[in-house]
Amino acid sequence: MELSTKYQAYIDCLNKRELIRLADYVSEDVIYNGERIGLEKYSAMLAGNYRDIPDLKFDIVLLTSESSVVACRLRFDCHPEADFLGLQVNGQHVVFHEHVFYKYIDGKIAQVWSVIDKAELADQLDGKQ
Amino acid sequence: MELSTKYQAYIDCLNKRELIRLADYVSEDVIYNGERIGLEKYSAMLAGNYRDIPDLKFDIVLLTSESSVVACRLRFDCHPEADFLGLQVNGQHVVFHEHVFYKYIDGKIAQVWSVIDKAELADQLDGKQ
Repeated sequence: MELSTKYQAYIDCLNKRELIRLADYVSEDVIYNGERIGLEKYSAMLAGNYRDIPDLKFDIVLLTSESSVVACRLRFDCHPEADFLGLQVNGQHVVFHEHVFYKYIDGKIAQVWSVIDKAELADQLDGKQ
Repeated sequence: MELSTKYQAYIDCLNKRELIRLADYVSEDVIYNGERIGLEKYSAMLAGNYRDIPDLKFDIVLLTSESSVVACRLRFDCHPEADFLGLQVNGQHVVFHEHVFYKYIDGKIAQVWSVIDKAELADQLDGKQ
């Protein structure tokens, strides 16, 4: 299977919130932003995102892959509840992006480098923060 | 020429600070983070970066390209003077990353989507901001 197809299946899994299938896509020893958090914490992080952002949906807007690396620009159009990334969003409608790189080993995501455009998000909030 | 080779030549140009050659790599009508700033403002933005960060150097740590899109994780190990991204860096040593996507048209960069990891940078500053 092409890496980009495999990645799209991972995003489908996230959008269906089928965390029980996450192990099909993510390595047991996954490293996230330099920290070896493992599959369990990775899954808990996603569960936290679903809780904090009830209408969370991952939209791929740009995708490239080469050898074992995937890069994706993700778009989020949603209403985070309460705090998000230390910002008081409190259910306001926001659109923001994440730029994320993934290193695949043995067909699964082994390492993730993620940067969220927090400045873009902050600019949309009432009484800019 | 492969797109990734072309991109590496662009980064070499930035590191040599040969802005006079920028037009070889960047379109006259370049769009940066959604705004059609054009080559002149793009060049001025880089000149501003060189001024604000005297030891600025672009290090490619991850690079993927596919059809007309390049994605790159860039690493910066430097000492920004005074303010940078609204943070009081004042010459402190910082290491931070940028995740950036480029759309090529006719062999030149036509569109750029850039996100800098500002949180990573802020975490390194004295009296965290």
